[in-house]
Amino acid sequence: MVEDELQLSQLLRDFSAIEGRKVLVHGGGRKATKMAERLGIETKMVNGRRITDSDMLEVVTMVYGGLVNKNLVARLQANGVNAIGLTGADADVIRSHKRPPVTLTSHLSPLTSETVDYGFVGDVDNVANETLTHLIEAGITPVMAPLTHDGEGHILNTNADTIASETAKALAQQYDVTLIFSFEKKGVLSNPDDDDSVIPVITRTLFNKYKADGTISGGMLPKIENALNAVDAGVSKVIITLATAIDGQHGTIIRG
Amino acid sequence: MVEDELQLSQLLRDFSAIEGRKVLVHGGGRKATKMAERLGIETKMVNGRRITDSDMLEVVTMVYGGLVNKNLVARLQANGVNAIGLTGADADVIRSHKRPPVTLTSHLSPLTSETVDYGFVGDVDNVANETLTHLIEAGITPVMAPLTHDGEGHILNTNADTIASETAKALAQQYDVTLIFSFEKKGVLSNPDDDDSVIPVITRTLFNKYKADGTISGGMLPKIENALNAVDAGVSKVIITLATAIDGQHGTIIRG
Repeated sequence: MVEDELQLSQLLRDFSAIEGRKVLVHGGGRKATKMAERLGIETKMVNGRRITDSDMLEVVTMVYGGLVNKNLVARLQANGVNAIGLTGADADVIRSHKRPPVTLTSHLSPLTSETVDYGFVGDVDNVANETLTHLIEAGITPVMAPLTHDGEGHILNTNADTIASETAKALAQQYDVTLIFSFEKKGVLSNPDDDDSVIPVITRTLFNKYKADGTISGGMLPKIENALNAVDAGVSKVIITLATAIDGQHGTIIRG
Repeated sequence: MVEDELQLSQLLRDFSAIEGRKVLVHGGGRKATKMAERLGIETKMVNGRRITDSDMLEVVTMVYGGLVNKNLVARLQANGVNAIGLTGADADVIRSHKRPPVTLTSHLSPLTSETVDYGFVGDVDNVANETLTHLIEAGITPVMAPLTHDGEGHILNTNADTIASETAKALAQQYDVTLIFSFEKKGVLSNPDDDDSVIPVITRTLFNKYKADGTISGGMLPKIENALNAVDAGVSKVIITLATAIDGQHGTIIRG
């Protein structure tokens, strides 16, 4: 999620200019953390993932589903895009189940392990591609918040990258889908200290090589794994690029 | 808006049990006031209407569009209702314009007047009945938050009763519409001290009589005026009833 106003304006202009059928998935983690702080609610992260207790669930439901989503929808409408904001609960578009507590073992100290309960966090079970297709074919652009539901009345917090890749995979049953992950770098870098060292194309074979030789490491590993899974599941192309360069001509292309 | 959990559960069960096509409009004023208080934002009301400055707009966008709307949608989904949450910005369903400052003169002191700027409050210009009809015919139940947009990128706070009556009026072009206003009383009372003194039917003629003789006064006057306008605009029937008695068999019926 772009939190800088100038970058956000450009992203929305660029997104609005994309021809054809499209879907926007957003996050809002920094805004949620700020709002939690104002409400005196502590933000706890484990491995970069938010622990979502009932107070934090209230915050993310407000911030992602309300504040961020509705402002994006209103701004896209002003740009001539007939946007509709959706959480997974809306029209039952994404069902999930609450993640059970997981046991984490660190490679730094393999003899110790820790059980983490992420709380009200949902792992995706199903994306209703027919419902999304129905909206899209009616000329509507879904704007998806990183929230899902369990079908039993509960909203669950769900990672935005996961929403994006699961939605792309589901829509690949009907469409030729390009999935663009936009973030603060120009793409996947071969040298993290050189912002211009963008790797143009990554295939499964190249990924294994870069992983083995340490060119790619850390948080980029699950992102690319995620992208390769999307490609395996029928998504035509995945691009990892700067938030202000979503024209499909920049960044790293992930291919099968 | 029902804020008591038991009453809300019953309202949602009753709403879910209604056969045929339906729309739910909700408020959330008390929750917004509480959230504003937690954030140190003062709630100012003039004639029962909220003054919506930019801080309060953030609060109502979060609370109405996120917290309240998404939880209602998730709970309706659990009841088997394929609900979709909508603000006016979503799929451009309700456009409004920002209310200009209004000059109020009190009948108690007709020589003094006061100019009130309600802030980011929207007066409805258009309800996209074709879009709503399209969703409804697809088996989807709109759940509408009291927020609209101006088409220029701004969310505006809009009275929930107004959303309900404007939506009912728009849908009356396609459907035989019954509009039910649910609140904390059994209906319009002839004696405010007797909760069982429900007036069964009010027509324009009866309304004028009750208004003249003082039987109906205060905040009930604009509510009934609103209801009569809806009837004049083609809504078949308006009912004012208890939140736990929305079966169409209780309360006050407003007829043309």
